[in-house]
Amino acid sequence: MTLKELKEIVFEANLDLVRHHLVLFTWGNASGIDRERELIVIKPSGVSYQELTAEMLPVLDFRGNLVEGQLNPSSDTPTHLVLYRSFPEIGGVVHTHSTYATAWSQAQRDIPANGTTHADYFYREIPCTRSMTQSEVFGNYETETGNVIVECFRTRQINPVHVPGVLVANHGPFTWGNSVHQAVENAVVLEEVARIMSISDSLNPVLPMNPSLIEKHFSRKHGAYAYYGQ
Amino acid sequence: MTLKELKEIVFEANLDLVRHHLVLFTWGNASGIDRERELIVIKPSGVSYQELTAEMLPVLDFRGNLVEGQLNPSSDTPTHLVLYRSFPEIGGVVHTHSTYATAWSQAQRDIPANGTTHADYFYREIPCTRSMTQSEVFGNYETETGNVIVECFRTRQINPVHVPGVLVANHGPFTWGNSVHQAVENAVVLEEVARIMSISDSLNPVLPMNPSLIEKHFSRKHGAYAYYGQ
Amino acid sequence: MTLKELKEIVFEANLDLVRHHLVLFTWGNASGIDRERELIVIKPSGVSYQELTAEMLPVLDFRGNLVEGQLNPSSDTPTHLVLYRSFPEIGGVVHTHSTYATAWSQAQRDIPANGTTHADYFYREIPCTRSMTQSEVFGNYETETGNVIVECFRTRQINPVHVPGVLVANHGPFTWGNSVHQAVENAVVLEEVARIMSISDSLNPVLPMNPSLIEKHFSRKHGAYAYYGQ
Amino acid sequence: MTLKELKEIVFEANLDLVRHHLVLFTWGNASGIDRERELIVIKPSGVSYQELTAEMLPVLDFRGNLVEGQLNPSSDTPTHLVLYRSFPEIGGVVHTHSTYATAWSQAQRDIPANGTTHADYFYREIPCTRSMTQSEVFGNYETETGNVIVECFRTRQINPVHVPGVLVANHGPFTWGNSVHQAVENAVVLEEVARIMSISDSLNPVLPMNPSLIEKHFSRKHGAYAYYGQ
Repeated sequence: MTLKELKEIVFEANLDLVRHHLVLFTWGNASGIDRERELIVIKPSGVSYQELTAEMLPVLDFRGNLVEGQLNPSSDTPTHLVLYRSFPEIGGVVHTHSTYATAWSQAQRDIPANGTTHADYFYREIPCTRSMTQSEVFGNYETETGNVIVECFRTRQINPVHVPGVLVANHGPFTWGNSVHQAVENAVVLEEVARIMSISDSLNPVLPMNPSLIEKHFSRKHGAYAYYGQ
Repeated sequence: MTLKELKEIVFEANLDLVRHHLVLFTWGNASGIDRERELIVIKPSGVSYQELTAEMLPVLDFRGNLVEGQLNPSSDTPTHLVLYRSFPEIGGVVHTHSTYATAWSQAQRDIPANGTTHADYFYREIPCTRSMTQSEVFGNYETETGNVIVECFRTRQINPVHVPGVLVANHGPFTWGNSVHQAVENAVVLEEVARIMSISDSLNPVLPMNPSLIEKHFSRKHGAYAYYGQ
Repeated sequence: MTLKELKEIVFEANLDLVRHHLVLFTWGNASGIDRERELIVIKPSGVSYQELTAEMLPVLDFRGNLVEGQLNPSSDTPTHLVLYRSFPEIGGVVHTHSTYATAWSQAQRDIPANGTTHADYFYREIPCTRSMTQSEVFGNYETETGNVIVECFRTRQINPVHVPGVLVANHGPFTWGNSVHQAVENAVVLEEVARIMSISDSLNPVLPMNPSLIEKHFSRKHGAYAYYGQ
Repeated sequence: MTLKELKEIVFEANLDLVRHHLVLFTWGNASGIDRERELIVIKPSGVSYQELTAEMLPVLDFRGNLVEGQLNPSSDTPTHLVLYRSFPEIGGVVHTHSTYATAWSQAQRDIPANGTTHADYFYREIPCTRSMTQSEVFGNYETETGNVIVECFRTRQINPVHVPGVLVANHGPFTWGNSVHQAVENAVVLEEVARIMSISDSLNPVLPMNPSLIEKHFSRKHGAYAYYGQ
């Protein structure tokens, strides 16, 4: 894939966030990575989706240095960089403040694996990170946000390929995937799963779900024995 | 009705699921049956609604053998087949992960008959099945999903013509009807009834509804003494 | 106003119910009355809004006899007739199963006067009727539905001009107004008030509202001292 | 800026309230001020958004005297005037009855600062005013509504530039900003924050948020050290 093609794909992914009603104003960003050249394409900061063009998207190296483009990258860029460096399997990252996922973040609760809709995409609970300390917040805040996500997955031994998303406490969701397109799809699903689970939670305190059903649904769509689709 | 006509009708029914906002991505499927020839037309697995055409729809016999078409049928096909075999009166089946119905499934609660909106279409509570066992899940999962639905109706002595829908525990709703068109209508109503009831439940713990009012509203629209409509 | 004009107005009012998302399928009806000639125009039963034309609307006299038209009037017609006979000031009636108002009906709760949005249109709580008895339900059901509404307003001494709507227990809302246009507006407001109040109720058990604020807001828009608008 | 330009901007701001689904019928109004000439442009009372044109907008002086235009200004005009006189930094004011913000007003609860979405725009809780007394309501009601807002900010020592919005108890939200455009943006954000927080509150009783995170997010977008955007 050329860098121009990656820009087009990341551009479309950013617009998809609007089409799926996941962002208000400029509250979201999607990025994609060229793993061979270690180049990242991301939304510029504070530019409205109406004005955005593929050519505007800044290109960064792995350390966040601007390689191409005129505009400042998203202020959340350092978080994306930590995720790309720590999770080598991923090809795209999305951040939004989508309503229901953000509500779970503010409630500081994991979204429990409680239905097959969840298990089709996420193999376990979607974790909510711990609160950040004052020194993390007043330090390299966006980098520390990434570190807190990675710490959450390492401490709880969650495989980021099996659970392609997280809730940052009091902030909102980040999702990822093989590609930026899949990261967007996971952002849509995370929001829908958060919505279903918030209604379910009001109808009945969360019941543990049959673990075999999680296993079954995840493996129906993922891995060597998947049989969903063509 | 020719097979070509049935394909057209089932195709439109699948698109109606999108128009009524009951499905995200490819999360739903509708099927119809030709009872004389015992042939079933169903959505292919994992094909997006944008790309779908009537000609693409696979045709199966009662045992699930592919009779016509190139594409794999929906992975939920064995569930549809159990329902067609067990409920001889039905002509169409729909499965979705619609938000509110799925929330009730995850809460593992029946939707109680608590309003005339419910009683106009469903003569009793809309039942939630028992959880499936590990051996059912790791066995012929989709067939066992159908079996658990049928068991639920038999054990609780619910007539599937009077209650044209069910919640599969921790999964989501299946609905049916005389035709696939009616199965879609019942899916829309089930979602709306689930939504109304979730709000009602938060306002007041469920109150038993006057049974005569259920009787009245169901019989106003169904059976020999119906007087609704032209 | 000619009968033809009344048909046009009632026709548009029925379509407005769809435009304001108050009805699914054929679940609603609006009617208007010519008080001089005591003629009522109402939606025909079970006809879809897509097929509906102004000419199709049946015209009835005060006792419900068909005066003009080929189609059966709405099955809820006897309820409309009771309201027109009992509340001589009203010129239009609307019935829907709108989501939030229906949820309050199913919860068998009055909607308390808890905000100025409510007080701008409804001078007190919007009452929920008592449950109907078995003999009322199996008797002249739709007429008895009207009777139970009228009983509710008489017993609780509510002026139907000051509170132009009601919740029928386990059923849904009826609204009315000077004209069918106003009855539609009141149906929209009732749904929005029901929605706001259901959220408010989950945030805080209902607090009594300052009665002077109800008085002020209602009189700002209604009666001799109104000063809202041009 | 000419007065004609201000009218155009205030006109567009009023339409934006509809576009962002913040108003039903005529339930909202936006105004802007020319600080040099001390002239205020505001929506006329009770005029539908469909009929509204920029030329229709009345122009008032600081005391509310009509300087230009034929139509009565919004009945809420005196509240706008108090805000312009008391908060000299602001250039625009918006009032709506948006669903979730109104629900919090009716619940008489502050919206706590519980997420970075909130902190990006509001530096602290969004306060709910005290209830108005009977003599305030039956006196110069709309002026007193403004006074109660100002009292709330003074008593609780909230800087209106840092918290550009308020909930009037049992009524609804007012927001403001540098310009009427920013007041609209703050009205949209207030509604979204109210929505997220109502869901969050149902998932978990409100947890105090890390104060450094509020500080960080607010200062990322506002003030001398802001680094969000281009």
